[in-house]
Amino acid sequence: MNDTLPFLPEDLYAVIGWPLSHSLSPLVHNTAFQTLGLKAVYMRFAVEPPSLAGFMASVRTLPVRGLSVTIPHKTAVIPFLDAITDEARQIGAVNTVFWDNDVLSGDNTDIRGFLAPLEKYSLAGSTVLLLGAGGAARAALAGLVQRNVREVFVTTPSNTRHTALAKEFGATPVPWQDRHNLPATLIVNATPLGMRNAHENETPVEFSHLQNIPEAVYDIVYTPRATRFLCEAEKAGVALRITGEEMFFAQANAQFARWTQRDLPREARDALEEALSTQS
Amino acid sequence: MNDTLPFLPEDLYAVIGWPLSHSLSPLVHNTAFQTLGLKAVYMRFAVEPPSLAGFMASVRTLPVRGLSVTIPHKTAVIPFLDAITDEARQIGAVNTVFWDNDVLSGDNTDIRGFLAPLEKYSLAGSTVLLLGAGGAARAALAGLVQRNVREVFVTTPSNTRHTALAKEFGATPVPWQDRHNLPATLIVNATPLGMRNAHENETPVEFSHLQNIPEAVYDIVYTPRATRFLCEAEKAGVALRITGEEMFFAQANAQFARWTQRDLPREARDALEEALSTQS
Repeated sequence: MNDTLPFLPEDLYAVIGWPLSHSLSPLVHNTAFQTLGLKAVYMRFAVEPPSLAGFMASVRTLPVRGLSVTIPHKTAVIPFLDAITDEARQIGAVNTVFWDNDVLSGDNTDIRGFLAPLEKYSLAGSTVLLLGAGGAARAALAGLVQRNVREVFVTTPSNTRHTALAKEFGATPVPWQDRHNLPATLIVNATPLGMRNAHENETPVEFSHLQNIPEAVYDIVYTPRATRFLCEAEKAGVALRITGEEMFFAQANAQFARWTQRDLPREARDALEEALSTQS
Repeated sequence: MNDTLPFLPEDLYAVIGWPLSHSLSPLVHNTAFQTLGLKAVYMRFAVEPPSLAGFMASVRTLPVRGLSVTIPHKTAVIPFLDAITDEARQIGAVNTVFWDNDVLSGDNTDIRGFLAPLEKYSLAGSTVLLLGAGGAARAALAGLVQRNVREVFVTTPSNTRHTALAKEFGATPVPWQDRHNLPATLIVNATPLGMRNAHENETPVEFSHLQNIPEAVYDIVYTPRATRFLCEAEKAGVALRITGEEMFFAQANAQFARWTQRDLPREARDALEEALSTQS
């Protein structure tokens, strides 16, 4: 930020959710606005579910130029929008609200966020094991089937929701206990296993049990940066290891582009990396 | 502002009005927040009258910690508050919304703003000529009658609303054409005469016509800083000349104190002075 007083923001952005847990989005987007000299500020709005309708009405009055939408509003917000993108429709959830001229619109940037770190990796002909069946797994699967993958196996620790998800996207559901016995070239973790606090010591896969070591692994968890899954993949000799930080930044970049038609600057990535390093 | 990226505001303040004309409040309050290192931002919210109820409901959901209220919402906002101060009740208008713990409250800081620059001037026994009968005149009159003035004469160019206003506060209404023939020791301009653009070349009083030259004059107009009224008062030898900038800053300071329990810092006054100088 330039050191001349004062900063006079005109445009308002926010993340909405309830309860609003710690989020790195304010750090990333405010760093970007301030680095680029935009008169915009990104805040945290804890919106209780009964207040969502009133809040969304106020969005049309206030200088709100964009929202990040998190749990529990990702689907509930849709009736209050004028339009949603094809990707939001495919996921059935909105994580980004933006103005398309005067049309209040919803997008889902998780598919683009998931695919961006895979751009340099050829997915054509690959066999993917997707672990998880929640919102992140859904975005990953929607992204994978856009590419010419040979097959996607879907499994989840609870052994429940993966069958419906797999069928919807033409993937193959498998029981959780069979996950090590598949010819996967890419393994994607979209479960919370490995996440700081409750799940930090867990991993969705034991590399020593795998039928074959994959070429690539992708962990959607980004706290800690180095999950047990990614560390063990490195030890097992997995060549390409994609961190959750990369997906987080890519989906944030897609949000920022919706709002400003610009990419997040390098400073925003640096701020994210520093914050995640400090936490680790 | 400190030069470390990024600034991550948590508390939201705004001025609401419709249409929202240029305001110096964002400059003053943002300078103060940033100088003091408070994680707060002050924005401009153009709220159309039909949207006021919905907006005020959203205030209870969003992290809005305070509002400045301008035309046309100063009276209309009252039903949406939990409480108002005695001063707001006396004026019948709210210019400041603040949280008194969990109670959404309305205050009017115009009386304190008007009186603050007069603190060093003894009003006891003085005879005041108050020009104007609108909202600013009402605040001035409410302030004057709190002090031991001998008499207040009230007049207004339209010769209409001053009679009711004067009677309400025990003042003396006089016709506009008689304004030069009164033994005033303090003359207060609360009309728009002298204001930039439409009224800049006008003045509410001709000093050459006055029965006696007052000890003090007070102009509530603050654009330009040096109104024709104040310039001619100086030429006429009026010892004490109070500018509208002083009242503006004092009412803003009273707002800031309601919100933060602190005074505006020197930097906020400097920013105001610089902005008004640049405009002049």
